[in-house]
Amino acid sequence: MLKLYYTPATCSLASHIALEEVGVVYEAHRVDFSKAEQTKPEYLAVNPKGRVPALVTDRGTLTETPAILTYIAQSFPEAELAPLDDPFEFARLQSFLSYLCSTVHVAHAHARRGARWADDPAAQEAMKAKVPKNMADCFSLIESSMLSGPFVMGENYTIADPYLFTIAGWLEADGVDPAQFPRVLEHRNRMAERPAVAKALAAPQG
Amino acid sequence: MLKLYYTPATCSLASHIALEEVGVVYEAHRVDFSKAEQTKPEYLAVNPKGRVPALVTDRGTLTETPAILTYIAQSFPEAELAPLDDPFEFARLQSFLSYLCSTVHVAHAHARRGARWADDPAAQEAMKAKVPKNMADCFSLIESSMLSGPFVMGENYTIADPYLFTIAGWLEADGVDPAQFPRVLEHRNRMAERPAVAKALAAPQG
Repeated sequence: MLKLYYTPATCSLASHIALEEVGVVYEAHRVDFSKAEQTKPEYLAVNPKGRVPALVTDRGTLTETPAILTYIAQSFPEAELAPLDDPFEFARLQSFLSYLCSTVHVAHAHARRGARWADDPAAQEAMKAKVPKNMADCFSLIESSMLSGPFVMGENYTIADPYLFTIAGWLEADGVDPAQFPRVLEHRNRMAERPAVAKALAAPQG
Repeated sequence: MLKLYYTPATCSLASHIALEEVGVVYEAHRVDFSKAEQTKPEYLAVNPKGRVPALVTDRGTLTETPAILTYIAQSFPEAELAPLDDPFEFARLQSFLSYLCSTVHVAHAHARRGARWADDPAAQEAMKAKVPKNMADCFSLIESSMLSGPFVMGENYTIADPYLFTIAGWLEADGVDPAQFPRVLEHRNRMAERPAVAKALAAPQG
């Protein structure tokens, strides 16, 4: 059985939602960051990166959100969560996932995880100060040219949607008013009404 | 005809090599960072992110290295640059690409692109100071548990190999002695002997 290691309020929510969308039976294991469980040997044996999400399959463990989302879409093709038969559209989807993981999530991470990139507390504060601008810049681009509407890729719901929903949920905490991005906000509100999203959010949170 | 926008000594090299590997006829356009061409309206019309690489296809433009590499592998299946028929192995490949773009490339970028994340010059210096440690940590993980050998995914050469070759080529400039990572170094040396790599590196550099 698939086993998802997740932490509330992290990017693991995207994979959690995708598992609910395809309707597979899976186990969800919470990794408690408040107890630093992600740094303990038990969890490092699952994912040596010390991050979430991790998806344990009967063939091995997968990490990195774009990879887990792609695995779910390809393993459950009947759910039609990716344009699997069109290399251009599939690459357009991968491009969106890559932008979220390598630019937007990274921009966000500088607010609370600055110690990854500088030891000096003053430098960490300087990084934190720029997060609202960087997140707003990212979402300006998403709003104007990446969110096709009504879903990220257009008419079809894909694995890009729970990932955007997850990261758009961080805007307020990052000091950005989502009302600046009405299309993103409408997408976020519409996503929140999906049963799969409600189920993923109902998993133990604390 | 496919058109690749590239800049020497950037991650666009990975896509450049992959195009050579599949043997397609394509145009290569150099984006001159020394003239800040990536910030000019002509280039922003190609890629509003102001980054390289960008691959122009007859259906539209693709950005983000993992997406371009995946597009090349899927569009030229006869080159066998990805395990296209195995969702788990394909996800394992995507996981490697995601790690390089979201963690390793990001760790590297803090050496010279710190202004993305903090305005304070002292903070940028503090970020730069941590780059050797972060890059060494990333490559320790790659050396010990991600590079299957002889290629990234094992016996088969894939799109992960030119991407690893590209980023491993930055180690010295990032203050890391690659001799610490003999498997990565052996991979890098072996990659350098491939005709496709030589051809990509022979493109106009300056």
